[in-house]
Amino acid sequence: MAQTNQRFLLRERPEKRCVPQTFELVEEEVPEVGEGEALVRTEWISLDPTNRAWIGETPTYLPPVAIGEVMRAAGLGRVVESKHPRYEEGQLVQGLIGWQQWMVASDSAPLLPVTEVEGVAPSLYLGALGMTGLTAWVGINDIAKPQEGETVVVSAAAGAVGSVVGQLAKARGARVVGIAGGPEKCALITEQLGFDAAVDYKADDWRDQLKAATPDGIDVDFENVGGPIMDAVFARLNFRGRVALCGLISDYNSTEPPAGPRSFGNLLVNRVLLQGFIVLDHFHRAPEAIGELAGLLAEGKLQPLETVVEGFDQLPTAINMLFDGANLGKLVVKVAD
Amino acid sequence: MAQTNQRFLLRERPEKRCVPQTFELVEEEVPEVGEGEALVRTEWISLDPTNRAWIGETPTYLPPVAIGEVMRAAGLGRVVESKHPRYEEGQLVQGLIGWQQWMVASDSAPLLPVTEVEGVAPSLYLGALGMTGLTAWVGINDIAKPQEGETVVVSAAAGAVGSVVGQLAKARGARVVGIAGGPEKCALITEQLGFDAAVDYKADDWRDQLKAATPDGIDVDFENVGGPIMDAVFARLNFRGRVALCGLISDYNSTEPPAGPRSFGNLLVNRVLLQGFIVLDHFHRAPEAIGELAGLLAEGKLQPLETVVEGFDQLPTAINMLFDGANLGKLVVKVAD
Repeated sequence: MAQTNQRFLLRERPEKRCVPQTFELVEEEVPEVGEGEALVRTEWISLDPTNRAWIGETPTYLPPVAIGEVMRAAGLGRVVESKHPRYEEGQLVQGLIGWQQWMVASDSAPLLPVTEVEGVAPSLYLGALGMTGLTAWVGINDIAKPQEGETVVVSAAAGAVGSVVGQLAKARGARVVGIAGGPEKCALITEQLGFDAAVDYKADDWRDQLKAATPDGIDVDFENVGGPIMDAVFARLNFRGRVALCGLISDYNSTEPPAGPRSFGNLLVNRVLLQGFIVLDHFHRAPEAIGELAGLLAEGKLQPLETVVEGFDQLPTAINMLFDGANLGKLVVKVAD
Repeated sequence: MAQTNQRFLLRERPEKRCVPQTFELVEEEVPEVGEGEALVRTEWISLDPTNRAWIGETPTYLPPVAIGEVMRAAGLGRVVESKHPRYEEGQLVQGLIGWQQWMVASDSAPLLPVTEVEGVAPSLYLGALGMTGLTAWVGINDIAKPQEGETVVVSAAAGAVGSVVGQLAKARGARVVGIAGGPEKCALITEQLGFDAAVDYKADDWRDQLKAATPDGIDVDFENVGGPIMDAVFARLNFRGRVALCGLISDYNSTEPPAGPRSFGNLLVNRVLLQGFIVLDHFHRAPEAIGELAGLLAEGKLQPLETVVEGFDQLPTAINMLFDGANLGKLVVKVAD
């Protein structure tokens, strides 16, 4: 067990990618626990594209992480000591743990207990059975509502959310097209995850691929990326198409505002419904969503895709994997057993 | 009564504005009426921004008007002779009459009877009590749903739809900001129509004006225009803002795809709902909408704004008024008494 508490603080806001000066590693003593507090040891830290947005200057749906503050992130930990009636020793908990090895949970910094299911790897509670799965489920179930036979396109299809989105849409009987970078990811989503077609956005002919993969146009765009690919997808949206606007990862590392979608006019012509959403607003849907996702997992209809990086010290470099397309599925860092 | 039937046919698709070669005037005999047909004399023709989109090359929500075909337009006419059970002589009818002085209505080219109300000028059935009013009502009532105290921004605010939108939003207790071109239109909407504030998009400081007029941000954007102004409005949308995407008139005369909104990312951050809509899909709402609009009109809470151009031959030049901002409110051409 670590005798010290290693923590990464935000030192400088990055201009584009995170660089060595972005974070500062500090070592502190493992905190003492007072009344109404519980000591939690971090086991897993979730890396998500939104983390990058949180360390920009512009407030997003949460205030920016302040300089000198511990880096904000979702994570999974275990209660080691508790002087709070809601936490029990040995309990698995999740929430905004941050990039630190130990954390004090309290009423002002609450964590949620996780109901562990036999045979389920804990990291899945950050992925397909956690926020990631809930994000995919809300976008499909409450916003885009694909019908049988409709064409659903999802970007970052081999990513954490995208890989679940495609499988959920398949389970609803839709034709699913995934956009991913490189032949390996494209093969993975079609051969392993059952997508109907893949578009390799790194290929020169990606526009032709998109056209060929969506001969009847596009009914649903589950949008994770933005940029020119979103623009091309918007141009192919059908009458009464829906856009579940979940992420714009292509913009997060840029210093100036991105060009907007030039095919925006098609949202008018085809009476498209677009809904921006953030999973934080939809926690009340978690019981139904996680129940359904766990069911699909048990039936083998949902294959969780995960990239595990070992070691707390890897966090500052691992976060860039998200923007290099270096992860398959959910990117998690294992901090302790 | 005209002895001939003057008609404007589409001769050439315009590159930008409509020019003399765009339309060709032809004179034909007034058509004979067969069984199942009714002869209608055109009294009023409605000029709408969407007319310009119909003569572009790209199909919109209706196929482009073909070269050599009569120019498509909504209008109001009177049945002069009927051999169809649904039409009566003397009846006022409306629908896609087109740029022609006489038209034959039939089951394949149907027109709708208008219930005339005492004291109501017939042209209003094309404007505040017609498609224009229905468009405004659907966008406010079924899509944007502004609540009391919320801030509603409407572009082309002194135009046909915009002027009704603002008054409907006021009637619902919202704070209403209109965007219009020039000090006269701005004075008109605030002083005569009761808008809370106006932004003159032709002024150099329009961005500052928009900011000053929306100190609490923007909850609803009723979008008629597009372009840089829409972009600035998007950037100020509040949490759970709504965009009723009704028109993009700034794009209709351009030859290449317009730049998209660079502040598109705010639709995600603030969980905005955007819905493109076309009034054609909402005719089933007409009874309720027109009833409410007629009530507001009778109570003096809705002032119809109208620009009347006299004479059928004025149509090809009058259509450009829409893009020059030369009309106040609904633009109609009077063809016959």
